[in-house]
Amino acid sequence: MIAVGERINGMFKDVKRAIRKKDKRVLQDLAVRQTKEGAKYLDINTGVAVTPDEQAEVMKWMVESVQEACDTPLALDSQKIPVIEAGLSAVKRPAMINSCKCDDVYLDQFMPLAVKNDASLVVLTMTDKGPLQDVDGRIEACANICGKAAEHGLDMEKLFIDPVIYPVNVAQQQPGYLFGVIQQVKFLNDPPPRTIIGLSNISQGTEQRPLINRTMLIMCLAAGLDAAIVDVLDTEIMDAAIAAEMLLNKQIYSDSFLKAGRM
Amino acid sequence: MIAVGERINGMFKDVKRAIRKKDKRVLQDLAVRQTKEGAKYLDINTGVAVTPDEQAEVMKWMVESVQEACDTPLALDSQKIPVIEAGLSAVKRPAMINSCKCDDVYLDQFMPLAVKNDASLVVLTMTDKGPLQDVDGRIEACANICGKAAEHGLDMEKLFIDPVIYPVNVAQQQPGYLFGVIQQVKFLNDPPPRTIIGLSNISQGTEQRPLINRTMLIMCLAAGLDAAIVDVLDTEIMDAAIAAEMLLNKQIYSDSFLKAGRM
Repeated sequence: MIAVGERINGMFKDVKRAIRKKDKRVLQDLAVRQTKEGAKYLDINTGVAVTPDEQAEVMKWMVESVQEACDTPLALDSQKIPVIEAGLSAVKRPAMINSCKCDDVYLDQFMPLAVKNDASLVVLTMTDKGPLQDVDGRIEACANICGKAAEHGLDMEKLFIDPVIYPVNVAQQQPGYLFGVIQQVKFLNDPPPRTIIGLSNISQGTEQRPLINRTMLIMCLAAGLDAAIVDVLDTEIMDAAIAAEMLLNKQIYSDSFLKAGRM
Repeated sequence: MIAVGERINGMFKDVKRAIRKKDKRVLQDLAVRQTKEGAKYLDINTGVAVTPDEQAEVMKWMVESVQEACDTPLALDSQKIPVIEAGLSAVKRPAMINSCKCDDVYLDQFMPLAVKNDASLVVLTMTDKGPLQDVDGRIEACANICGKAAEHGLDMEKLFIDPVIYPVNVAQQQPGYLFGVIQQVKFLNDPPPRTIIGLSNISQGTEQRPLINRTMLIMCLAAGLDAAIVDVLDTEIMDAAIAAEMLLNKQIYSDSFLKAGRM
């Protein structure tokens, strides 16, 4: 699993405070710790720490600060082109752009930007009208996304489809739909696009968040999931993901497989 | 998930000692505790506590002892007909017979016994030559098992196929085969037979037994598994199974779903 570390996000209090104080050590510490725990990308999100006008400048500062501390590629987390562009102007390694909606108007802006910058792109199965609800609607959208990627010259291995998780306590049929989408996406194209989820949303408002998160993650991996935005500092979640991939024979068993899976 | 509590088995030291001392309170305590934790059947196995000649008599005593303490149905765990018959002679509720190999010679003995006693029957994808190795071989065996069940009048809902787990550290492609078998068994018949696994074997000889056990269980449930012989006293394993079934929409979400899932 490609683990995207979720912690460098202004929605978390410590990061919000660090952004406001321009204290880059907090970000750098999170970057190093997440990398050590197995993050393959570090999500960078200004969150609500700053006004919309300041987001581009702050994104650039966050990217520069984190890159002083480690070499892990970055996932630039915004749906605004200027904020993404500010991040891309500073990255030293191919980034992930996270994310754009699946209306053509967005695909036609974000895909060329990704191609030009050798970046991966996360596309949500969500339009301006809201997230798509069922399996068929999502798969239909994915087919269009793959077509657009071919049109713009975006490699399938750089395309990540995010089928958008609903909290299980408000839409209990949704996890099953997600497993279906993750499985079926693999048949849309050869090679197929990859799949990614923002895991934590599944447990919003529930009283068993870590248990629900890691159980959902294991089942998504069994369905063929490639990547997830997760709290890599949660040892149990990473252990669960690594154990799942070992059982799926994607990682060789050894007595130290949990350590190997974080390398 | 139909949880079969694995603890009343002479291979565990406390049970072995209790059998030798004819101390039924140990068995009764395990029966009550496992029932409270969500066991729908209690496995009853003399293990190596007694000589082969004594097994039938001891099985009967174990069944009678446990039934004095609780009403949970029993899974009579032996591959010997006389031991099973001794257990069946004492059970007060329809039992599970666990288990027989899938050679015709065994099916033709165990299936009539199950039908006559209104019992469920676990059939292993294992012949006198050993456990079947790949998906196709197991599915072929399952098709024959289903045909035999029809011949003997054993209802599909009373037939449990156990595809036989290998330890992951010796056969790392086997978990993937198992997911395939569990999925495909559902297409063999309408209604389909059920599937069951003896979970703990997956982690034999590894250093992360609870993690590997519960991760495997979640992935098997995602593939469609119906039942498992597990340590129901392991809170984390039961929590994982209940969370998986809630995410699969087989159990309604409530804030107390972990409690509800044990009822």
